[in-house]
Amino acid sequence: MTERGLLIVLSGPSGVGKGTVRKAIFDSEDNDFQYSVSMTTRKQRIGEIEGEDYYFRSKEEFEQMIRKGQMLEYAEYVGNYYGTPLPYVQKTLDKGKDVFLEIEVQGALQVKEKVPDGVFIFLTPPDLAELRMRITGRGTDSEDKIDERMKVAREEIEMMASYDYAVVNDEVPKAVERIKNIISSEHFRVERVIGKYRKMLEEL
Amino acid sequence: MTERGLLIVLSGPSGVGKGTVRKAIFDSEDNDFQYSVSMTTRKQRIGEIEGEDYYFRSKEEFEQMIRKGQMLEYAEYVGNYYGTPLPYVQKTLDKGKDVFLEIEVQGALQVKEKVPDGVFIFLTPPDLAELRMRITGRGTDSEDKIDERMKVAREEIEMMASYDYAVVNDEVPKAVERIKNIISSEHFRVERVIGKYRKMLEEL
Repeated sequence: MTERGLLIVLSGPSGVGKGTVRKAIFDSEDNDFQYSVSMTTRKQRIGEIEGEDYYFRSKEEFEQMIRKGQMLEYAEYVGNYYGTPLPYVQKTLDKGKDVFLEIEVQGALQVKEKVPDGVFIFLTPPDLAELRMRITGRGTDSEDKIDERMKVAREEIEMMASYDYAVVNDEVPKAVERIKNIISSEHFRVERVIGKYRKMLEEL
Repeated sequence: MTERGLLIVLSGPSGVGKGTVRKAIFDSEDNDFQYSVSMTTRKQRIGEIEGEDYYFRSKEEFEQMIRKGQMLEYAEYVGNYYGTPLPYVQKTLDKGKDVFLEIEVQGALQVKEKVPDGVFIFLTPPDLAELRMRITGRGTDSEDKIDERMKVAREEIEMMASYDYAVVNDEVPKAVERIKNIISSEHFRVERVIGKYRKMLEEL
């Protein structure tokens, strides 16, 4: 009996280092995640491989997938669509393999609606001292500027509330270790394994 | 600002090896848990130290603590009370230290009522094959015997449903590693850390 894979979503405020951490996780030795290839309507560049760098589709095809509810999440950026196609993700999870997505906060919230039992990890800046400095600046900034940053910080923290875990990105190897620990621990959550036991008893 | 410690509860069906796993966790190098000393009404034996092996109390004192709601969990066994006093546990958690309890399933359910945000870990037998064998036996057992075991197995699995994690005790060092991973991951859960961020923003 194959246990279903986990959908892992890594996100966080821009500039926090999501891409670097994701890359380090995939480069690490004992990783066993499937990276999800995005779909886009932008033109294929020389050297890019279909199904590896992206799935390249026309705007019409992409919009049809949106209408059919086949995009796990998507966004428009400079006139092109970018997103995660659902069928591939579902197929991989059904095979018992974990799928790892590294996406922007808005996309993560879309995924949360479609796959509430995913594991949602929010990467946070190194420490509160840095957050404080980012907000108050060097004491030479105008009140308006500080208020604006304060608003952004508040929004970021309220976004965090929709996630399961908040992991500090103080040092990349440490953040990687924490995320890998979280993923292996999530496999032991009762709601993910109890069905296996119940089914076994039924089959006796 | 001190983050509150976690209350970790390790339990599981009798005979699964809870005591062995708990001992291995406390003997491991990087453990940083506080073991909770139980309270009992049984007589202090020679060599036993008050506050280290047990808190030794009279039946009247123990019953008064129960009435005052100061027992996190307790049970009666061969005419004596055994239980976990709440005040010490609360004090330790407030200091930011994790408290580790290894108790019977009934006690764990009592703890769950009083401290729902604890981390409840259910230790399970090596594998489903063993569970199947425990139930069906060697094929020479009576239907009644198999039915009885089936009932016990069902009850155990339904108990599991009140826990957060189910960890297989296939090999003690592996089970220890899994439990330690779970505990460190739980420290990153958003509901445990978001208050810290919110408070920080208020204080700016």
